[in-house]
Amino acid sequence: MSLTGKHVLSSELFDRDELERLFSLADLLVPVARGRKVARVLEGAVMASLFFEASTRTRLSCESAFLRLGGGVLSCTNAELMSISKGESYADTSRVVSGYCDLMVVRHPDDDAVHEFMAATNVPVINGGNGAGEHPTQALLDMFTLHREFGRDGRGLDGRRVALVGDLRYGRTVHSLINLISLYEDLTIVCVAPAHLGMPVALLERAEMRGHRIELSESPEIALKDADVVYATRLQTERFGGGPVSYGEEFRIDKSLVSRVCRADTVIMHPLPRDSRAGSNDLAMDLNSDSRLAIFRQTDSGIPVRMALFASVLGVAEQIPDALRPATWYRPEYTGPDDAPFYRNTAL
Amino acid sequence: MSLTGKHVLSSELFDRDELERLFSLADLLVPVARGRKVARVLEGAVMASLFFEASTRTRLSCESAFLRLGGGVLSCTNAELMSISKGESYADTSRVVSGYCDLMVVRHPDDDAVHEFMAATNVPVINGGNGAGEHPTQALLDMFTLHREFGRDGRGLDGRRVALVGDLRYGRTVHSLINLISLYEDLTIVCVAPAHLGMPVALLERAEMRGHRIELSESPEIALKDADVVYATRLQTERFGGGPVSYGEEFRIDKSLVSRVCRADTVIMHPLPRDSRAGSNDLAMDLNSDSRLAIFRQTDSGIPVRMALFASVLGVAEQIPDALRPATWYRPEYTGPDDAPFYRNTAL
Amino acid sequence: MSLTGKHVLSSELFDRDELERLFSLADLLVPVARGRKVARVLEGAVMASLFFEASTRTRLSCESAFLRLGGGVLSCTNAELMSISKGESYADTSRVVSGYCDLMVVRHPDDDAVHEFMAATNVPVINGGNGAGEHPTQALLDMFTLHREFGRDGRGLDGRRVALVGDLRYGRTVHSLINLISLYEDLTIVCVAPAHLGMPVALLERAEMRGHRIELSESPEIALKDADVVYATRLQTERFGGGPVSYGEEFRIDKSLVSRVCRADTVIMHPLPRDSRAGSNDLAMDLNSDSRLAIFRQTDSGIPVRMALFASVLGVAEQIPDALRPATWYRPEYTGPDDAPFYRNTAL
Repeated sequence: MSLTGKHVLSSELFDRDELERLFSLADLLVPVARGRKVARVLEGAVMASLFFEASTRTRLSCESAFLRLGGGVLSCTNAELMSISKGESYADTSRVVSGYCDLMVVRHPDDDAVHEFMAATNVPVINGGNGAGEHPTQALLDMFTLHREFGRDGRGLDGRRVALVGDLRYGRTVHSLINLISLYEDLTIVCVAPAHLGMPVALLERAEMRGHRIELSESPEIALKDADVVYATRLQTERFGGGPVSYGEEFRIDKSLVSRVCRADTVIMHPLPRDSRAGSNDLAMDLNSDSRLAIFRQTDSGIPVRMALFASVLGVAEQIPDALRPATWYRPEYTGPDDAPFYRNTAL
Repeated sequence: MSLTGKHVLSSELFDRDELERLFSLADLLVPVARGRKVARVLEGAVMASLFFEASTRTRLSCESAFLRLGGGVLSCTNAELMSISKGESYADTSRVVSGYCDLMVVRHPDDDAVHEFMAATNVPVINGGNGAGEHPTQALLDMFTLHREFGRDGRGLDGRRVALVGDLRYGRTVHSLINLISLYEDLTIVCVAPAHLGMPVALLERAEMRGHRIELSESPEIALKDADVVYATRLQTERFGGGPVSYGEEFRIDKSLVSRVCRADTVIMHPLPRDSRAGSNDLAMDLNSDSRLAIFRQTDSGIPVRMALFASVLGVAEQIPDALRPATWYRPEYTGPDDAPFYRNTAL
Repeated sequence: MSLTGKHVLSSELFDRDELERLFSLADLLVPVARGRKVARVLEGAVMASLFFEASTRTRLSCESAFLRLGGGVLSCTNAELMSISKGESYADTSRVVSGYCDLMVVRHPDDDAVHEFMAATNVPVINGGNGAGEHPTQALLDMFTLHREFGRDGRGLDGRRVALVGDLRYGRTVHSLINLISLYEDLTIVCVAPAHLGMPVALLERAEMRGHRIELSESPEIALKDADVVYATRLQTERFGGGPVSYGEEFRIDKSLVSRVCRADTVIMHPLPRDSRAGSNDLAMDLNSDSRLAIFRQTDSGIPVRMALFASVLGVAEQIPDALRPATWYRPEYTGPDDAPFYRNTAL
């Protein structure tokens, strides 16, 4: 299979071979993402990023990835897109913008709009998040993070115990993640959520059919023991009808809980943003200096993995090794003030 | 005449020689616009796109054209421009932004603001649409489309029968178009509109003085017969005071009407967006697979013609032939799924 | 001291040596800012501009400076940033975006948010204006303007009489300016404001301790006599609680006042925007053709001085001389129609 020219709608596009090819390319691109090398294989190419729903993180990450490859970016956000619609169909918008660019990233609050975009163009479209549907580039960056975390000492991801924690019902990132992680072997997947926010049964069944062990739990205190990975999520309150859906502070993943129950080599992840207001039961800020906290290694991973995806879809992956040259500007040794403890123990 | 350093306020800037010079350059730039060649003659140059009125199509098309030439883009849209005005004159805004860039594209809902912008700077300003006034780059892309459609078999545009259909009173694109098309010879221009939405008399008189035949009609059914070009438009409802101004379904240009009355080689155009909601009397979606429908060839044409205009205004047109090199990324054979039937019969 | 890798929070970061080093570099970059030369030392680098408060001028100027150096720009403005916060801390936003770029410019209406941004990242952050706090790049461009105005005939800034006029209490640009200008020698600083809008005492005391003479006045008519520099400001009405705070027309700096009281070589500045509506008591439009009016030389100066700052913070300053090459596109001899009289008397 080749990704060249493909639309990327769903994480189901990828098999394990394709994932690993993509991750090898992304490994090569990490120094470019970090401003240490330059690889301008897309000079002259243009990406259009069309965000019918606000998403600074995804938009900026995609745009940065394309710029790092030397391309140019057209950027269009919600307010503007909506105010000019004048009854235009998504099909027309898609076909029109296709004539302006070589690749589109589209986010939309409705599940179906991205499908309509894709049907109306031969220019590759990347799903940047479609409603409660999929968010495949987030799933790729989560998987790439796991590939890096478990790759650095050669342990590998197969056979691990992975705890998914929090709002597993409405969080589309965990839905895409459980699909992709299931491409690996012999996992124990622990879904930790109140009953009313549990993982959809269809997704559990699919993971089970692929040979993984599924465990359900309502107690982070118990379920996080011996986990190799803890993937915490935020309450997707904006997707509820507005009712009093929530969970208690036992779902607050903080220093106290992690110290009590997690292993020294557990990898703690979260798709961000996390709610850091007082009283929020989310991943806590007091873990920031704990090198097990991989959340910024996750967001950092978004750039190389999206670069790898864009390069693959646009068929320039093989040009990258020869295009690499050193960057000549200043770059801090570590991007964040809390990054050092982790990287000091790791060959980059 | 040379366009170098000129403001582009009106389609009246162009005579037929200038148009044809521009279109020859645009022909050369079509492969760059399509991502098949690269021509970075403006590396280091900066364009500012200032849109005081939302217009995703025009903004993205101009920005893409400038990026394709290797330049960088500053982008500023309505909400932001308005919120920071603090009583600043357009003259000040224009002169300030002139110090940040080499070219400005300005759209404004008031007819006069663009004039004020132009008066306050020596940096070239392109009118991106001024209220009910002009939209010269739209007129250029319409004319370039006609140049391509009638150029491919050597027929040429002179002597043709051109039907302009719909809201001819408020649609500024047809006002600019009738001016530009009149530069050609021996046309029959059929204005098809209800009496209250007819083409302004001054524009009709000018076309007549240039030697063209003018016909008026209220019936698309009759007037579209034997037309070489059908240029449909959308009701400019946002420009009315809000009254019940409209027209009936006889102005719906759809498959049924086109099959009954149009020739096999009629070129069907529309400035877009078209209203595709049920019950709208606009150009219909059921014509999408009809290769006579040229609307996406029109929007695609916006890129090479704007590239040609920017290159001419910035005096780099002559550098383009030597700057062309092949692009190395993936590009679909046809941009849209319905493009193939037309291009298969055409030398690109 | 080196600026490489530093956050730029305050104008207090700079001593006179550092200022002069920066201005020498900016002098070298003036032709790049004006589109006459190209210097792409940052090809492959990415800047993120995060504006939590609208500021078209500062945003576009910073983005243009980075583009002129060959870099790419991620742009994010208020509405979008706010709508996606979902309770995220500034620290998280900062660390996340740090992984997408090599430099951040951040503006925020709260004084403290920029501090939080800086504390959370090792990637250099430039303060683009923090509430009523500082706006160091504006202060740099004001000082660079003075360096150019008094440098062109070798007179120099030391020993000059500088009048600061208008709202000296809420205008953060004059606060930063009085700090930076105090790095020079033997100035007379005349603060011209109604008593309730006077310069904060702490800033006056600091300037006095550095050996400058301070004079206070409520009359522009008297205080502008013999001034080498008149720095006018706008009423910062958006920072008041909404009360009837204002001043009379004696604070209108117009042709009549300037003709009566200013010398032939006085330099008249203003941070812009100025309020040009009828009845506003601001710097008047009728001075536009007076070559003493330096306001557009000020805004033009924003590009080379920000280029110099970015190049210094990213450690590429020394690469610039070798990177300079001629630009090949059209550029008007003078950017603005009123620029000629000044530059004709000046070696560029």
